[in-house]
Amino acid sequence: MFDKVEAAYNRIKEIVNKTPVMTSSTLNERLNCSCYFKCENFQKIGAFKFRGALNALSMLTPTEKKKGVITHSSGNHAQALALAAKFVGVKAVIVMPENAPKVKVAATKGYGAEIVVCGSKPGDREDAVIPLIKKHCYTLIHPSDDLHIIQGAGTAAYELIDEVGDLDFVFAPIGGGGLVSGTAIATKGLLPHAKVIAVEPENADDAYKSFKSGKIHLSINPITIADGLRTQLGPNTFKVVREKVEEIILVSEQEILNAMQFLWERMKLVVEPSGAVSLAGVLSKQIDIENKVVGIIISGGNIDLTSFFDILRQKIQ
Amino acid sequence: MFDKVEAAYNRIKEIVNKTPVMTSSTLNERLNCSCYFKCENFQKIGAFKFRGALNALSMLTPTEKKKGVITHSSGNHAQALALAAKFVGVKAVIVMPENAPKVKVAATKGYGAEIVVCGSKPGDREDAVIPLIKKHCYTLIHPSDDLHIIQGAGTAAYELIDEVGDLDFVFAPIGGGGLVSGTAIATKGLLPHAKVIAVEPENADDAYKSFKSGKIHLSINPITIADGLRTQLGPNTFKVVREKVEEIILVSEQEILNAMQFLWERMKLVVEPSGAVSLAGVLSKQIDIENKVVGIIISGGNIDLTSFFDILRQKIQ
Repeated sequence: MFDKVEAAYNRIKEIVNKTPVMTSSTLNERLNCSCYFKCENFQKIGAFKFRGALNALSMLTPTEKKKGVITHSSGNHAQALALAAKFVGVKAVIVMPENAPKVKVAATKGYGAEIVVCGSKPGDREDAVIPLIKKHCYTLIHPSDDLHIIQGAGTAAYELIDEVGDLDFVFAPIGGGGLVSGTAIATKGLLPHAKVIAVEPENADDAYKSFKSGKIHLSINPITIADGLRTQLGPNTFKVVREKVEEIILVSEQEILNAMQFLWERMKLVVEPSGAVSLAGVLSKQIDIENKVVGIIISGGNIDLTSFFDILRQKIQ
Repeated sequence: MFDKVEAAYNRIKEIVNKTPVMTSSTLNERLNCSCYFKCENFQKIGAFKFRGALNALSMLTPTEKKKGVITHSSGNHAQALALAAKFVGVKAVIVMPENAPKVKVAATKGYGAEIVVCGSKPGDREDAVIPLIKKHCYTLIHPSDDLHIIQGAGTAAYELIDEVGDLDFVFAPIGGGGLVSGTAIATKGLLPHAKVIAVEPENADDAYKSFKSGKIHLSINPITIADGLRTQLGPNTFKVVREKVEEIILVSEQEILNAMQFLWERMKLVVEPSGAVSLAGVLSKQIDIENKVVGIIISGGNIDLTSFFDILRQKIQ
C-alpha cells in the first residue's frame, strides 16, 4: 500500500498546498518532548480532505471522467470533492441534507458543484444518491472508505516525515478512518518503528469499540463537538486500522476544547474541534511521549465564526 | 541604517522564530496580484515586538545589563521585553497601568519580569518610570521610538524579502511607527524600487496627519479596535517614515474587521485587529496593486479569546 501513497503524492503534489509544519516551545517544555504539527487547516478548502478527493478524481478512467462523480456529505468532503472536480474538469454532484449549514452549501456551490438537497433522516442521503447513480452512471466517491481517498489522505503524513525526518509517534484523529489509515500506511512505510495513535472523542467511541471487539460498531448520531468525527469505520479503513494502528485512545469534550484553545491562543491557529482531537490525545498523557519525537496531524480549520465576528462588529458601532 | 538591520538579524536569528510566509490563492485571484503574508503572529510572544526587544537588549553594555531595563506598556512590548530579558539574562521592570488586562499582566510576570502597577491617567506611566530609573539606573527601552527596536523590527521584512525575492509593495501597520520604520529600512535597502505603504486606522489618524503636515501630531486616546496602533510617532520613527515610506493610507474599523475575518476564516490565522490593518489597506484598493507582487506584514495575534471559548464550553455542558 505504501507505494500507492507515494504515487498519490507525485500525482497531486503540484496542486495541493504543501502545508507548514509548526512547533510550540511552550508545549515541548511542558511535555518534555518534541512535537511537530502538520497543519492541514492550511490545506485547500481548509482541510486534509482535498488530498484524497484530488487523488480519487485523478484515478478516474476517461469514461468515468465524462460521466462525473457523486457523493453525500455536509462537511469538508463536499467542498473537497467540489474543488477537486474543478481542477480535474469533472462534473461533481453533492447530495447535502436540508439542514446542512448554509455557508457550507454556498461554498460547495461556489466551486461549481451541483447540489442535490435531501432529507436529514438516516438513510435519506443514500436514498437520494442511488437513483442518481443509476440514471447518470456517476462514480460514487465515498468520504473515507475508498482506497484512493485513503492513499491521498496519507500524503499529509508523507510530507510531514519528509520534512521532519524520524518520528517516534504520529497522532491523528479517527472518525471514518480515512485520515488515520492513510497516515498509518505512510508512517509505517517510511518509519516502520514509529507508532500511530488514533484519537477519538469518547462521545463517539465506535472506532474504539470496533478496535477492541474486532467488528465494526455503528455510529448512531453521537453528540460531540468534533463534527467531522461522527462517522464510522468502513471495511477498508477498519482493515488498515487493525493492521497498522498501535492504539485508539479516547478524549472528552472538555479535553478537545482545551486542546483547541491552546492551538488558537498559543499557536495562533484556527483549528476546528475535530482538528484539535489529536493534540487532545497527546495532552491526555495516556501515551508516554517523554523525550520522544511526536507528529500531530491537525486535520482542518473549518469552523463557523459568524457569531464571533458579529460580537466584534457590535463593539465598533 | 540598512546594514544595522542586517547586523540585528545576525544577532537575533538564532532565537527569534523564522515565521512562515503564507499565501491565499482566493485573495490573489480576487485582486489579480501576488500577496505574501509575513506572519508575525507566529513570532515568540505572538507578535513582531520580540524582534526589537531582543535586539535592544543584545546591544546593552555589560554595565547596563547588570543594572537592568525598564519600560511602560500594557501591550505586546511588555511581554516581548520580559521574554527577551529572560533570554539575555537581564532584569526587566515593566510599568503597567492598573487597568491592564489580567491575562497580559500574568503573561509578563510569567516570563520573570517585575511588574510595577501605576495609575491609568495620562502621565501616570511616566511618573512611575522616572523615579525608578533615577533610583536603580535602569535603561529605558521605548516600545517603538528606539533605533535598536526599529532595526530589530525590520528583520521581519528582511526575512520576508530573503524568502520571497522581489516585491513591488510592502504594506505594514503604523502606530508608534517602529514596525513600519524597520520595514522601510529593510525594504529600501534590499529593493530600492519597492514602495512601502503604511496603513493606519482612520479613528487614530495621527501618523497620517503628521505625514501630511510635516510635524508630529499627538494621539490622544483614539477609539479603535486596533489597540496596538493607538500610540503616536516619535522623533526617530517620524524621520524614517518621512524619508522612506511612500504613503500612509487610512482604513475604517469595518475594513479592519473585514480583513481580520478573511484572515481567520479563509487563511485560518488568529490575527489581532492591529495585525489585520495592513491587509485592510490592501483590500481598500487605495493603491493600485494589480499584477504586482505585494508583501503584507501581519504584526501579531494576541487577542483575548476567553469569551469565545466560554460560549463553546456552554455548548458541551
